[in-house]
Amino acid sequence: MTLSMLQGEPTVITVGAGLLGEALDAQAVPRVDVAWRPPLPGTEEALATVLADPRRVRANEVAAGRLVSARPQLVGVRPAREALDLPPGTFLHAGPPIEWERASGPMRGALIGAMLLEGLAADPEEAERRLAAGEARLDSCHHHRTVGPMAGVVSPSMWVFEVRDAEHGGTAYCSLNEGLGKVLRYGAYGEEVLTRLRWMGEVLGPVLAATLDRAGPLDLRALATQALQMGDELHNRNRAATSLLVRELAPAVVEAAPTHAAEVLRFVNGNDHFYLNAGMAACKVGADAARDVPGSTMVVAMARNGTDFGIQVSGLGDRWFTGPSGVPDGLYLGAYGPQDANPDIGDSTITETAGLGGFAMAAAPAIVRFVGGDVADAVAATRSMYEITLAEHPAYQIPALGFRGTPVGVDVTLVARTGLLPVVNTGIAGRLAGTGQVGAGLVSPPASAFTAALEALAGESRAQIG
Amino acid sequence: MTLSMLQGEPTVITVGAGLLGEALDAQAVPRVDVAWRPPLPGTEEALATVLADPRRVRANEVAAGRLVSARPQLVGVRPAREALDLPPGTFLHAGPPIEWERASGPMRGALIGAMLLEGLAADPEEAERRLAAGEARLDSCHHHRTVGPMAGVVSPSMWVFEVRDAEHGGTAYCSLNEGLGKVLRYGAYGEEVLTRLRWMGEVLGPVLAATLDRAGPLDLRALATQALQMGDELHNRNRAATSLLVRELAPAVVEAAPTHAAEVLRFVNGNDHFYLNAGMAACKVGADAARDVPGSTMVVAMARNGTDFGIQVSGLGDRWFTGPSGVPDGLYLGAYGPQDANPDIGDSTITETAGLGGFAMAAAPAIVRFVGGDVADAVAATRSMYEITLAEHPAYQIPALGFRGTPVGVDVTLVARTGLLPVVNTGIAGRLAGTGQVGAGLVSPPASAFTAALEALAGESRAQIG
Repeated sequence: MTLSMLQGEPTVITVGAGLLGEALDAQAVPRVDVAWRPPLPGTEEALATVLADPRRVRANEVAAGRLVSARPQLVGVRPAREALDLPPGTFLHAGPPIEWERASGPMRGALIGAMLLEGLAADPEEAERRLAAGEARLDSCHHHRTVGPMAGVVSPSMWVFEVRDAEHGGTAYCSLNEGLGKVLRYGAYGEEVLTRLRWMGEVLGPVLAATLDRAGPLDLRALATQALQMGDELHNRNRAATSLLVRELAPAVVEAAPTHAAEVLRFVNGNDHFYLNAGMAACKVGADAARDVPGSTMVVAMARNGTDFGIQVSGLGDRWFTGPSGVPDGLYLGAYGPQDANPDIGDSTITETAGLGGFAMAAAPAIVRFVGGDVADAVAATRSMYEITLAEHPAYQIPALGFRGTPVGVDVTLVARTGLLPVVNTGIAGRLAGTGQVGAGLVSPPASAFTAALEALAGESRAQIG
Repeated sequence: MTLSMLQGEPTVITVGAGLLGEALDAQAVPRVDVAWRPPLPGTEEALATVLADPRRVRANEVAAGRLVSARPQLVGVRPAREALDLPPGTFLHAGPPIEWERASGPMRGALIGAMLLEGLAADPEEAERRLAAGEARLDSCHHHRTVGPMAGVVSPSMWVFEVRDAEHGGTAYCSLNEGLGKVLRYGAYGEEVLTRLRWMGEVLGPVLAATLDRAGPLDLRALATQALQMGDELHNRNRAATSLLVRELAPAVVEAAPTHAAEVLRFVNGNDHFYLNAGMAACKVGADAARDVPGSTMVVAMARNGTDFGIQVSGLGDRWFTGPSGVPDGLYLGAYGPQDANPDIGDSTITETAGLGGFAMAAAPAIVRFVGGDVADAVAATRSMYEITLAEHPAYQIPALGFRGTPVGVDVTLVARTGLLPVVNTGIAGRLAGTGQVGAGLVSPPASAFTAALEALAGESRAQIG
């Protein structure tokens, strides 16, 4: 090393502030510029402890290896009551656990709608009164191997996608997508919302179940791989994946349910996000396979309930580390503006947890226009995520980056060390119950969720050593 | 101008050989490098004449304007006999006109198959004898507002897509796609080929016709615009377009033909190129709208019959300018190699004529692997085509180039001046009749077709002036 340094031309690596780099440029000295950011404030000691944990490197290899080797397959569609053993009066919701008192407008709206759908209240006022009185049991989707976009409310009579991991054997669930605009997951609960949900329970769910009995299981890893080569990032853009799904299932829909085939195909075709929910269950089953690896600092869940943004970490069991949900920065529909926006909400950040969505923005240049930006922003977003992730996905590749794998497996220590937070792209719900979607944009999780997790990891490391 | 040159820093533009540029770089003088190639040999005089034609600039604006403003709509599917008024014993074929004697293996194979399909011969030997005796009438598809991929053989009982240009009122046709492998258009004529073609005439054609009666017209300009944002270049990759087509038509297929819906959807779903033929008719109807603009040097057809590569030019009526078809450079299926390849064949170069296919390669990085290459090659291919085209398509945009429009409208004078030939990506047919597809790759048209067209343009310019 020393010899080659003396013999060859010097190679200079410049980091951080630009002054030295500019001085070298002025002298035409070749240099390699490396981005550097200060660590998150106050994390130095915990970071040193966790980085010194001898289990960490191997544990993260195991956790990331499980996440990227998952082979999610869509095996069925079933009523939540049966698939999740969900008793009457129990409602699952997105994000870390929350009670009615702290719930945001769209979360309350979705819960009101679920009460009405289940026949537990005659009108919204009664539903709200009963919810406020604690008559319903609320729990986090994530505690039931389930995810749900936006409010993420799952009630017993809703139907859910069932996804199995052919590699590790896990199972995960997600509700069926209702479409855009006035829909329950954005907090709307009017008659059109309930009518649609009833039709989904009576027609859509049973038809898809019969279809998958004939045509399933459907390989969602292969489907997502293709969709990434077709301009989807699989969180806010699911047009290719939805098209591939329709195309794959259409013949079996006709055979399974000749009388309802046309209306089911028309409904699915009318909603470019129909795939999202199946994809979220696919991400969830992979992330769950990576849980509970002692010493691992990898994030296995990022989820928002509209009030708190929470994360779970492989080496820390089922504990949530939360901070306040931010308001997304993006584009608004019609006359809506930031003042109408609810803070970030939904379990759809399971896509970013699994290396898709904001992490795969470079695969979907069209999405950056949707959230306000240009193609270079999409590429920069993806590139920056390689700095805080443990792996590159072997199957999920980005054509624009020469088929490089998407960055996957957020490492709490890398987030703390760089101060870079995960890039999330998301829909924006209206602040008031009953409004629906008001826009779409980009949002960062609160740094405090990551620093809290780092402290817990440090405590766990010290306990291990001690 | 002079003042600003004296006052500011000099700006140096370097062209051609690299020596000056390198010398400037060594002195750290900023410069802009511009690619330069010598014109095609022997074209100087004709080029000077045509470039001096006062009609040229405006004529090309009109021709390119018509090409890019076409609004192709899929309006129906009909038997060729009726749509094209094709009498028994008449067969259309790809490329410029050709007779049996000069026809290549796959062209002969497809004609033999068409004779058998039409019941004009009992076996391949009889078909070949009758064709050699001149008992069938052959004509170029392009003479009948029609295009066909590969051999492009259209016989009276085959069904064709009907595409209408809602902007200029024209109509164009293309056969239905049979799938890959052993298919008539690649020169195969075995029993499986004929059985499939019969089913296409008895089931597929009528079902699609009934479907479009319900659901049509279908906006192919909008569909192609979307597909380019989903990784298709719409010549050798049509996966997104086919998915969007299936998705759009599926509900109406069910309603129009409940008993055949599943088999039709399964057939279409099984073939990622199903869209190609509808797309070719869409390109044809746009290119035809740009025909017959006096003084225009824009190419309105590029087509190959497996022996000759021919072009037609807007300002030169229906004349063909031909040169020998080259053998594509690409990847081969299984044990096949270049020695098995037929020279370039098919009307599918209508996609490049309309700014898609090879011209849109940057939109489809996945395609370059299929033909041997990498992402940078795809971008370079598209970029180079801006040098020989008259316009950028206002709707057909390439995400990877910051949504720049595809290069469209090949100008014979720009080809002659730069020596750059259109980039075509294509399937490769087996040389021997009956083989089918052997690979896929890239090919250049013969320069002689363009120099011959340039001479004719020069003659026409002189006649105009004289």
